[in-house]
Amino acid sequence: MTKSRYPAYPPDITEEQAQFLLTNLNDWSIAHGLAVRPPPSFVSAAQDPSGVLASTAPVTLFPSLFPRQCFDEGFTIQKAYNELYSAIARDEEWLKSIVEELLEVDDFVAKLWQVHLDVKKDGYVQDMTLGLFRSDYMVHLDPSSGNAKPQIKQVEFNTIASSFGGLSSQVSALHKYLNSIDAYPAEAGSVIKQDSLPQSQSVPSLAAGLAAAHKAYGTSKSSNPLCVLFVVQDPERNVFDQRHLEYSLFVENGVRTFRVPFNKVLSYTKLDSERNLIYHPPHTPDKAFEVTTVYYRAGYSPDDFPTDAEWTARLHLERSRAIKCPSILLQLAGCKKVQQVLATPHSPHLARFLPNESTAARVLQTFAPIYPMDKSEAGLEARRLATDPATAQRYVLKPQREGGGNNIYRGAIPPFLAQLPESHWPAYILMEMIEPPAQSNVIIRNGEVQKGGVICELGIYGVCLWKKDEILENREAGYLLRTKGDQSEEGGVAAGFGAVDSCCLVEM
Amino acid sequence: MTKSRYPAYPPDITEEQAQFLLTNLNDWSIAHGLAVRPPPSFVSAAQDPSGVLASTAPVTLFPSLFPRQCFDEGFTIQKAYNELYSAIARDEEWLKSIVEELLEVDDFVAKLWQVHLDVKKDGYVQDMTLGLFRSDYMVHLDPSSGNAKPQIKQVEFNTIASSFGGLSSQVSALHKYLNSIDAYPAEAGSVIKQDSLPQSQSVPSLAAGLAAAHKAYGTSKSSNPLCVLFVVQDPERNVFDQRHLEYSLFVENGVRTFRVPFNKVLSYTKLDSERNLIYHPPHTPDKAFEVTTVYYRAGYSPDDFPTDAEWTARLHLERSRAIKCPSILLQLAGCKKVQQVLATPHSPHLARFLPNESTAARVLQTFAPIYPMDKSEAGLEARRLATDPATAQRYVLKPQREGGGNNIYRGAIPPFLAQLPESHWPAYILMEMIEPPAQSNVIIRNGEVQKGGVICELGIYGVCLWKKDEILENREAGYLLRTKGDQSEEGGVAAGFGAVDSCCLVEM
Repeated sequence: MTKSRYPAYPPDITEEQAQFLLTNLNDWSIAHGLAVRPPPSFVSAAQDPSGVLASTAPVTLFPSLFPRQCFDEGFTIQKAYNELYSAIARDEEWLKSIVEELLEVDDFVAKLWQVHLDVKKDGYVQDMTLGLFRSDYMVHLDPSSGNAKPQIKQVEFNTIASSFGGLSSQVSALHKYLNSIDAYPAEAGSVIKQDSLPQSQSVPSLAAGLAAAHKAYGTSKSSNPLCVLFVVQDPERNVFDQRHLEYSLFVENGVRTFRVPFNKVLSYTKLDSERNLIYHPPHTPDKAFEVTTVYYRAGYSPDDFPTDAEWTARLHLERSRAIKCPSILLQLAGCKKVQQVLATPHSPHLARFLPNESTAARVLQTFAPIYPMDKSEAGLEARRLATDPATAQRYVLKPQREGGGNNIYRGAIPPFLAQLPESHWPAYILMEMIEPPAQSNVIIRNGEVQKGGVICELGIYGVCLWKKDEILENREAGYLLRTKGDQSEEGGVAAGFGAVDSCCLVEM
Repeated sequence: MTKSRYPAYPPDITEEQAQFLLTNLNDWSIAHGLAVRPPPSFVSAAQDPSGVLASTAPVTLFPSLFPRQCFDEGFTIQKAYNELYSAIARDEEWLKSIVEELLEVDDFVAKLWQVHLDVKKDGYVQDMTLGLFRSDYMVHLDPSSGNAKPQIKQVEFNTIASSFGGLSSQVSALHKYLNSIDAYPAEAGSVIKQDSLPQSQSVPSLAAGLAAAHKAYGTSKSSNPLCVLFVVQDPERNVFDQRHLEYSLFVENGVRTFRVPFNKVLSYTKLDSERNLIYHPPHTPDKAFEVTTVYYRAGYSPDDFPTDAEWTARLHLERSRAIKCPSILLQLAGCKKVQQVLATPHSPHLARFLPNESTAARVLQTFAPIYPMDKSEAGLEARRLATDPATAQRYVLKPQREGGGNNIYRGAIPPFLAQLPESHWPAYILMEMIEPPAQSNVIIRNGEVQKGGVICELGIYGVCLWKKDEILENREAGYLLRTKGDQSEEGGVAAGFGAVDSCCLVEM
């Protein structure tokens, strides 16, 4: 992090102010479903076998600061990102070249690819795909310039199970509410202005995306009523995040949804002779539904595939005529390797997918450079940067393999490389550090209050629906701010390492 | 209870149907704030010191059956009831005669009356009063006639802290939701029709009542911003019920609300020289508010007055220029003795307050006859009914004193009176039993599922605002159905002996 250029914020609060804020925060959250099922460390299954208890979702007490132009830029380029990842998912040949590099080292990617090949053997029977995306950014302030403009730099692009859209609408409403009842100390008023707190529209927007796919599917081919299927983990503590989408889909769009744990897919769904995906709800065995859209909130991690049965289930769903959100190819488009090759300096790939030069240039602006450590031109440049203690300060060295080992930061990189045989260097990538301006906040989790420096990630949701090469829907779909303590190297509120947050926009 | 004339309901459900219903019920409830803070027997304060956990409010799995004409009748006569209790509260002389009969035996009533007298000494400075009422009924089927029409008979009339209006809107929405996703077995469809499930409008209607008082109060006399004050118990497990009113008051009516525990009233409020009630929120000591309306969700029970300090606080509030919901006189109008004298056969009192004969006759129809056991004309009739084993079957003998001892039911009355010296008989009243048609339901409380016979009470909310003898607002304000197991002699979900419910209307 760089020295902060944010205004002084949040203000200190008295014991009475804290009490008032927390009481209002906790009551408002439960009254509005800004909630999670409590973790087993807080409430054991033995204590609450029916799972009726809920607690306030981990949230920040204040909306965190975020530069307005960065926020606006994220929204502005979301459609280009939707277009980019849609184009990647449609370019099987190109994806194949990426996947082939990973086959040896990443069993999960290999198995996903095999599912694609197996479906292809019989032929795909659905030519539409739905993406509910979330592009995650951090604010970057070039540390070498004292008055650099803040920029957003992409952390990752999610093409599957982009979460927290359901709670994000609620947390921005919470912060607006707390501000509107003057629960924040008067000093906050110098930062939180009339239009500082944008309301995230993630719930209605993501639900509208699912509804668009449902509608585009057309009429039932099996004479059964139509539904959307949420394929979920079980148990799922973050269930209300998903339920808010489901309720919006039903109430505002009239679309029925069912939830099926991934490991029950083979029990409760069948393909008919036309490969229509037929869902047989266990509670109404004599009434079946034809699935228009499979929305995966599971299947994004190897942990979701403990046995071959889950791979069989995935193949079964992919073979069906239901629209997949996402398809296998779209899921693969979201792997880290794709982000890496796009962000490699002098990479030709971006232009392949975004032929419009100014659009591509704008997207490129949001990439933090990622270098291979091989002997390519970019790799040689990376080696120079990483072995020089002065330039290494601005980089992190990461293992190529997803989830594979520890990152090496800044000054530790040159000595690390010095003791590593050069033949092993290509197993790493070198990434420019994103340097967010320092700020503080208070995180509330399971009733515990933690105050300190925080790091924020802005996620912009996107909806994209396409049919072969024709894009049918392309929209931004609200935002999420996710905030964690700046000591933490991990992310993700569901895993217990962060909080949902909303933006307090500031001019910089 | 009489033999049921309701249709067969609810249908039996399979394990899978129960699972589907319960999962949807529990998730929907938390997502929509149909929640309570869990009781200490479920979650101890040590486990959750910050009070962030919540659980699904105790609810019924199915909407209980209720005769449509009874439901309609409750709504139809609510304005007459509002008028009646408003008239009683304005008739100090008459109330005095009632209270004087209770002074010796009921210390709580005596102390409330003393507060009134103390305020009167200085003179009242507010001539408006707000009532948020709830008139509670059970369905009565005359057991002596096989095809009698069902009638509603009043159980009690609440003039203070009429609760569950906040959750009632939510539970009728829950049952409508479960029905709309076909979570109920198909057989239920023969009973639950298109228009069977009325949506309770209690949240917006009660909030509109508070907003009407707030507006009628007029502009600030102290140059402070205006607010409504909820005077509450602490701790309050049923907090979301109250919060829903507060949020509706704020979001839909733009009215600020603060919550003050009853025992903090003297710390945080002051009367200025004009007896404006000034609230100093502890979290903003330099910013004060002028209270337009005091809404009591505490102070209805002797338990709320453990020391003289609470009586001082009550006097302090009553002396203020804020509109009280309710005033002392309105609270006293709700005591059981008033209900008793109104419901005594041949009583002249009803006509005093409801001069319109047909209105009075319609209200009278909803009274279950209550007889004194003295030597008045009605008393002598009561003695005949109570000592004859045949007629005693339809009565319950209750001690006069509120909360004083056990009731004697039906066949047990003649032998009980036989062993009681006749001089003690006037300490009791004789009340006709209300005989609801038998029905079953499933009650969900803290994750426990209890199935069996149930008794339902319909509560119709009313809003009434008056200024001296002029009624400014008079409206019905939604409904509550409260359901308990038919073994239980107690009522009240907050006390853990029942569930909030909604009506499934049936033609009878």
